[in-house]
Amino acid sequence: MNALGKHLVLELKDCNKEVINDVNFLRDIVISAAKEAGATVLGESFHRFEPHGVSGVVIIAESYLSIHTWPEYSYVAADVFTCGDSCCPEAAAQLLIRELGCKSPGVFELKRGLLATNGEEYGNRPAQMVI
Amino acid sequence: MNALGKHLVLELKDCNKEVINDVNFLRDIVISAAKEAGATVLGESFHRFEPHGVSGVVIIAESYLSIHTWPEYSYVAADVFTCGDSCCPEAAAQLLIRELGCKSPGVFELKRGLLATNGEEYGNRPAQMVI
Repeated sequence: MNALGKHLVLELKDCNKEVINDVNFLRDIVISAAKEAGATVLGESFHRFEPHGVSGVVIIAESYLSIHTWPEYSYVAADVFTCGDSCCPEAAAQLLIRELGCKSPGVFELKRGLLATNGEEYGNRPAQMVI
Repeated sequence: MNALGKHLVLELKDCNKEVINDVNFLRDIVISAAKEAGATVLGESFHRFEPHGVSGVVIIAESYLSIHTWPEYSYVAADVFTCGDSCCPEAAAQLLIRELGCKSPGVFELKRGLLATNGEEYGNRPAQMVI
């Protein structure tokens, strides 16, 4: 089975409340995470909400990284989706966990676009926890 | 358990090859899908690759929608992530499935940011297929 894409779903609990409310810091670290993964950054869009919280996406040539923060719960949802063999999404995940001061990270892997080896049919398999 | 976000993972096989290689059409339908879900569009970023394939993200006030297409396999990976009770991500998913001419859709739901009802701890539960 050949997956076209690898999608890491990051459930990040017990993060640093101040850091995850700082839109400029978050933009910087998500772009850094994309580069750490070996990805090519094409664009980004980040927004800060009132009274708190940030949403942002970095588009990469290999797919995207996204982040959504709930400072009131010290919680962050992030996604790192890459395709091809040249990226290491796990490196991006590790950078995000470290920079967000996350004490309770959960990382789940989804295989996207699973092709049967004969190229004739697709399949899906359950998410795997990788960290 | 209260989830902060609902994340629909769309594995869309047997799509219309021409439609999923048309970046302008895809931008229009992903923005339409966001509006169909009742979301507020904040920005978008779409890119077409050579020789084929499109990646795009629409940022919404309630999180994001993303799409990645492999016309050579008639395959599309899409994500619809919303938070709050005012959106209906399933409506966005249905619009995408219809407009992409998808004959073999798979939609999986991830609950993001699950809070225990006492507000003291988080948990995760397995993905559920909703369509």
